[in-house]
Amino acid sequence: MHELVRRMYPLCRSITGDGVRATLDIVGEYIPLTVHEVPTGTQVLDWTVPQEWNIRDAYIADGTGKRVVDFAASSLHVLGYSVPVSATMPLAELRGHLHTSPEHPSWVPYRTSYYKPEWGFCLAQETLDALPDGEYEVRVDSTLADGHLTYAEHVIPGQVADEVIVSCHVCHPSLANDNLAGIAVATYLARALAEQTPYYTYRFIFAPGTIGAITWLARNVERIDRVRHGLVLACAGDRGQLTYKQSRRGDAEIDRVLQHVLTGSERPHRIDEFTPYGYDERQYCSPGFDLGVGSLSRTPYAGYPEYHTSADNPDFVSPEAMADTLAVCREAFAVLDRNRRYVNLSPYGEPQLGRRGLYDSLGGRSDAKQAQMAMLWVLSLSDGEHTLLDVAERSGLPFDTVVAAADALHGAELIKA
Amino acid sequence: MHELVRRMYPLCRSITGDGVRATLDIVGEYIPLTVHEVPTGTQVLDWTVPQEWNIRDAYIADGTGKRVVDFAASSLHVLGYSVPVSATMPLAELRGHLHTSPEHPSWVPYRTSYYKPEWGFCLAQETLDALPDGEYEVRVDSTLADGHLTYAEHVIPGQVADEVIVSCHVCHPSLANDNLAGIAVATYLARALAEQTPYYTYRFIFAPGTIGAITWLARNVERIDRVRHGLVLACAGDRGQLTYKQSRRGDAEIDRVLQHVLTGSERPHRIDEFTPYGYDERQYCSPGFDLGVGSLSRTPYAGYPEYHTSADNPDFVSPEAMADTLAVCREAFAVLDRNRRYVNLSPYGEPQLGRRGLYDSLGGRSDAKQAQMAMLWVLSLSDGEHTLLDVAERSGLPFDTVVAAADALHGAELIKA
Amino acid sequence: MHELVRRMYPLCRSITGDGVRATLDIVGEYIPLTVHEVPTGTQVLDWTVPQEWNIRDAYIADGTGKRVVDFAASSLHVLGYSVPVSATMPLAELRGHLHTSPEHPSWVPYRTSYYKPEWGFCLAQETLDALPDGEYEVRVDSTLADGHLTYAEHVIPGQVADEVIVSCHVCHPSLANDNLAGIAVATYLARALAEQTPYYTYRFIFAPGTIGAITWLARNVERIDRVRHGLVLACAGDRGQLTYKQSRRGDAEIDRVLQHVLTGSERPHRIDEFTPYGYDERQYCSPGFDLGVGSLSRTPYAGYPEYHTSADNPDFVSPEAMADTLAVCREAFAVLDRNRRYVNLSPYGEPQLGRRGLYDSLGGRSDAKQAQMAMLWVLSLSDGEHTLLDVAERSGLPFDTVVAAADALHGAELIKA
Repeated sequence: MHELVRRMYPLCRSITGDGVRATLDIVGEYIPLTVHEVPTGTQVLDWTVPQEWNIRDAYIADGTGKRVVDFAASSLHVLGYSVPVSATMPLAELRGHLHTSPEHPSWVPYRTSYYKPEWGFCLAQETLDALPDGEYEVRVDSTLADGHLTYAEHVIPGQVADEVIVSCHVCHPSLANDNLAGIAVATYLARALAEQTPYYTYRFIFAPGTIGAITWLARNVERIDRVRHGLVLACAGDRGQLTYKQSRRGDAEIDRVLQHVLTGSERPHRIDEFTPYGYDERQYCSPGFDLGVGSLSRTPYAGYPEYHTSADNPDFVSPEAMADTLAVCREAFAVLDRNRRYVNLSPYGEPQLGRRGLYDSLGGRSDAKQAQMAMLWVLSLSDGEHTLLDVAERSGLPFDTVVAAADALHGAELIKA
Repeated sequence: MHELVRRMYPLCRSITGDGVRATLDIVGEYIPLTVHEVPTGTQVLDWTVPQEWNIRDAYIADGTGKRVVDFAASSLHVLGYSVPVSATMPLAELRGHLHTSPEHPSWVPYRTSYYKPEWGFCLAQETLDALPDGEYEVRVDSTLADGHLTYAEHVIPGQVADEVIVSCHVCHPSLANDNLAGIAVATYLARALAEQTPYYTYRFIFAPGTIGAITWLARNVERIDRVRHGLVLACAGDRGQLTYKQSRRGDAEIDRVLQHVLTGSERPHRIDEFTPYGYDERQYCSPGFDLGVGSLSRTPYAGYPEYHTSADNPDFVSPEAMADTLAVCREAFAVLDRNRRYVNLSPYGEPQLGRRGLYDSLGGRSDAKQAQMAMLWVLSLSDGEHTLLDVAERSGLPFDTVVAAADALHGAELIKA
Repeated sequence: MHELVRRMYPLCRSITGDGVRATLDIVGEYIPLTVHEVPTGTQVLDWTVPQEWNIRDAYIADGTGKRVVDFAASSLHVLGYSVPVSATMPLAELRGHLHTSPEHPSWVPYRTSYYKPEWGFCLAQETLDALPDGEYEVRVDSTLADGHLTYAEHVIPGQVADEVIVSCHVCHPSLANDNLAGIAVATYLARALAEQTPYYTYRFIFAPGTIGAITWLARNVERIDRVRHGLVLACAGDRGQLTYKQSRRGDAEIDRVLQHVLTGSERPHRIDEFTPYGYDERQYCSPGFDLGVGSLSRTPYAGYPEYHTSADNPDFVSPEAMADTLAVCREAFAVLDRNRRYVNLSPYGEPQLGRRGLYDSLGGRSDAKQAQMAMLWVLSLSDGEHTLLDVAERSGLPFDTVVAAADALHGAELIKA
C-alpha cells in the first residue's frame, strides 16, 4: 500500500482534471475500475458540475528569472483551481496572492478556491520571508474550461443486490494521509473482498470530495434504497489511533459492527458521534438520504498539525498503520457480511437438539460447551428482531461461534433467514 | 421588585376577599390586569367556590383590656378563614384555639382552616408562655358570606395564539417569599416580555392557590389546548440556590429549556422531578390536563425553616435573589420563544451554501466558523423532529448561534418552519 | 421444610418412574395434588415422552462378592436411565462405564444418559483408586419400558382466572439443594398462599426438568394466555445469597416485583439477566411462549462445587436459607398479587379529598402525611399506564402505603381498576 501512496503522491489532483484521471489509471492497475465522466454544467442535486481545471506549469520567478516558487517541485504550490495569470508585479502586490502557514514556517499549506475565481500560490513562510523586495514574474499556466468531472467505481458482486459502499475522496494533490492512504486501503480492501463471493454487493467509489459524492448520489438516486451500509475511508495511514465516526443515525448496523470490532480488539481507538462536518459521510448522511454510512480514519479530520500541509507526505503515513486500518476493515466486513436476522421455526419450548445430532457431538470440551450455548442463544433470540451480532453481544460469545451455531441450526432447519 | 414586596406585605390575603383585591390593585399599577370575580357556589371542576372571607379586626385581650395578640400587628395572627367569635374565656379553654411553632418560639406560624369552620389565633410560643392564667377576651371580626373568588390575568399577545402561562398564587397573607416575591418576579417578567412582540402569547395568572388555579382551569377548559408551556413561580426571593421542578411529563419542552439554561449558566441550582405536591403545578399537571408546566423557585416548597412563619418577612427575600430569578426566567423564555422545528428543503446532499452567500462571508474567524458549523447542524437535524434546542445541545454550539444560523437558512429558503 | 427434604432425599428420582411418583406422594401429604400420567410416545412440542425407567438394584461386586459400589447406599451410584446389565468383566473394561469427579475425590458425581442407551456407575475417585485389578461383577436391575411420564399440579383458585405459575423440577435423585429444597419451598409457599383468597389463580407445577415442563406446556397451550406471571424455584436452600434470574423479557412484571422486593430488603442478593441455560425458565421463556417467568434460587445453577455431586446432601441446605427463600417468595407475591393499574376518574385538577373525608383524618402525623402523599401520587399516576408498583418506586413510598391509598380512593370512587 505504501508504494501505491508514493506512486500517486506527485500528481496534481483536484476536483476535476487530468490529475484525477491519472490517479484512477494507477488504481486501475490494482483493481478494475469503471470510470465515469460527467460534463461541466450537469445539475447534480443542489450543485452544478464546475468547469474542468488543468494545469501545466506555475511559478514565481525573481528578477534574475530564478524560480523561487515552482509547481514542478510540489503540486501544493499553486492555489487549487487557480485561474491563469501571467504578470510581473512588485512583492507588495504579490503578497495578496500568497498563502503561508506562519505557525509552521517550513511547511507549505494547501489551499483552494473552487467556486470563486482567484489565482494564488502557497509557500513556506520561510521562503516568503527570504524574498527580497522587487519585481517578480508570476505565471499560472492553467485552464478552466468546459470538460468533465471524473469518478470511478469498482463493484464486487455479492449474493444479494443489497450494497455496501466504500467511498474515498481523490481530489487532494500531494497529501499522503489525506487521502492517498485511504485510496490505498480501499484498493487493497477491494482485492481482499474479491477473494470470496461476499453476501452483499460491495461498491467502491473513488470520487472527488463533496462535488464527487454529490454527483454519485445524484446519478444513483434510484439505487440508493439498495445501499444498506457504507464506510468512508480517509486519513487511513497516520500513526495515530483508530477513530470511527458514527453515521448520523448513530445506531446503524455499521455503527454497531465497528463498535463491536474495535471494542473487541485490543486496539486503542475512539468512537465519535456524527457531526455534519468532515468527509463525504456529510453527503451520504444528509437527512434526505440518511444512509448507514460511517467513517473510519486514524487521527480524524483536521486533527493533526500536518493536516493540509506539505508535512502530510509519504513519510507521514506508515505501512503498519495502513495495514492495521485494512485489518479492521476486513474484520468489520467479516462481521457485517455474516450478520443476519433469523426466525426460530421451533419457538415453543426448546427443540430437541440431541435428536438432530446437534448435541451429541458435544463432550465436555469448553469450545463444545460454547457451541451449545451459542445454539441456545440463537434459538432464544431468533425472533426476527435480533441479529447474530445482538446474540454475540448479549451472550458474550464470539461472533464466529454464534455464526457457526446459526449455520448448524439453519442446516437442521430449526431457523430460517 | 423589593419595594413591590414591601407594599403588598401588610395586606391580609386569603383565597377570597378584599386582601386579594387590594393586592391585585397594586400589581395593576405595574401591568394592566383583567380581574375576574367568580361567585360563591360556582362549580369548578371537582370543587365549589367557597364563601368569601373578610376580616376587619381580631385580637386577644387580657383582663386589663390590653391586646396581647393583635391582627393589626400582623395578618398572620388570625387563623385564615376564621369564623367570627366574640367571647371571654379562661386561658385553658382558649388554648385549644391557639397555634404556635414550639421549635421556633419567637415566630408566629401561618395556619388556615378553609373548609372546616373554626376560629383561632396564631402567636409566638414565647407570647403564649408569658400569658398568665385568667380570663381573656377573644374577638374575630370576620365575615364569611356569599361573595366572589377573585383572580386576575395579564396577557401579552404574541405572533401565534399558542400560549405560555406564568402562574403565581396570591392567597398568602404577610409572607414575603411565599409568595410576594413570586408575584413581584412575575410582574417584572411581564413588563420585560412586553418590550417586544414575542412569538407565543404569554398569559400571566395571579390567582389564589389550589382553588384559584382550579377555577382558572375550569373556566378555560376550551383554551387549554393552546397552552403549550408554562411556569409556576413561587418562593422566588430567598437567598438559596435556584430549584426547577419538572412538569409531570419530565421531558416537556419547558423542562428541556430550564435544564439547558440552568446547566449552561454558572448558577448553582438543582432540578427536581415532578411530585404531585407543592404549588399550582399540581393542578396544571393533573393527569387530565398534563400540561408542560414546571415550577421555578429558589429554596423549594417547605424547604426552609422560615416557611409559613412570620420569619418569612421582607428581610428574608433579597433584591439580588429576585433579580437572579427574573434573569433566569428571561433567559429561559428567550430560548423557549425562539425554539422551533424546521424542515430542510434541500435534504439530499448538502445545499451549496457558497452560491447563496452563506459561506463567502466566512473567513477564518472562529465565530464565522461557528456560524458555518451551526448552519450544517441545522441542515442536518432539520427533519421536523429536532428543535433548535436539540441542535444546540447535540452540537454544543450556543443557542443564539443556532438561531442565527436557522434565520440565515430560512432567509435563503433552505429550511421551512 | 428441612424434614420434607430429608424424607424425599433417599428416593431415586429420574425424568420418569416410581421415584417421581413416591416423591409426589410425599408432597401430596402437605398439599393436595392432581397427578398427571402421560404415556410413553406422546408427542410433546418438539419432543416425545420417553420410555419409563425403573430400577430395583445395582451394584459392582468384587471377586469375593462384596459390593464395592451399591445403589442401596445412594441413588447417585447408578447412571440415570442406565440400561440393565449383568456381566463380569475386568476392571480395565469396567472403567469405560465409571464416572468420577477427580477434583473432589471423595464425592460421587451425578450423571445421566436419558436419550442415548448406556449403562454406568458413578463413584468417588477414592473408591475407584482403591479397587484392585481383577474381575468384577456388575449388575443394573433396571427396566426401560413403555409407561408414563408423571407430573403434578396444585391449584389455588383466585379472584380471577389469570394465573401465576410456580414451577420446580422433581427429576433429580439424592440431591438436596437441586432440587428438594425447591420442592419444599414451593410446597410451603402453596400452603401459605391458600390461607387467603388471592387475586390471581396460583398453579404449582411439580414436573421433571425439561421434558416435564415441555409436556406441561404442550398440554396447556390453550391456557398459556392466562399465565400472566411465573417463578421457577431451584437451588432454594443453600447458604449462599439469593439470586433472581430475570425472564427473557427482562422487564416483565415479575422481574420488577422481585427487583423491588430484593432491593427494598436488607438481603444481600444479585439479579442476573436471562440466559437460555438453567432450569425450566428455558422452556417457559422460549421465544414462542416468552412468558414473564423468572427464576429464584440462592447460589444459581451450577454455581457451587457441590452441584450435581453427593455433597449436595441434606446438610448442604439449611432451614434458615429455605425459610428466607420462602419469605422472599411470600413478599414478592404479596406485591404481585396487589399490583394494579387504575384510571383516575377525576383527572382534571385534584379532586377535593377533604369533602370525601380522605383528608380530614390526616393530622400532622408522619404516617398520615405519607397516606396523603400516596393518595396524590396514585391520583397523579393513575392513567391506565402506571401500576401501583410504579407509584411506589416513583414516589419512594412503601408499596403497602400506596395500596392503602388506592383502596381508599377506590372506595371513594375516585379511581377505577
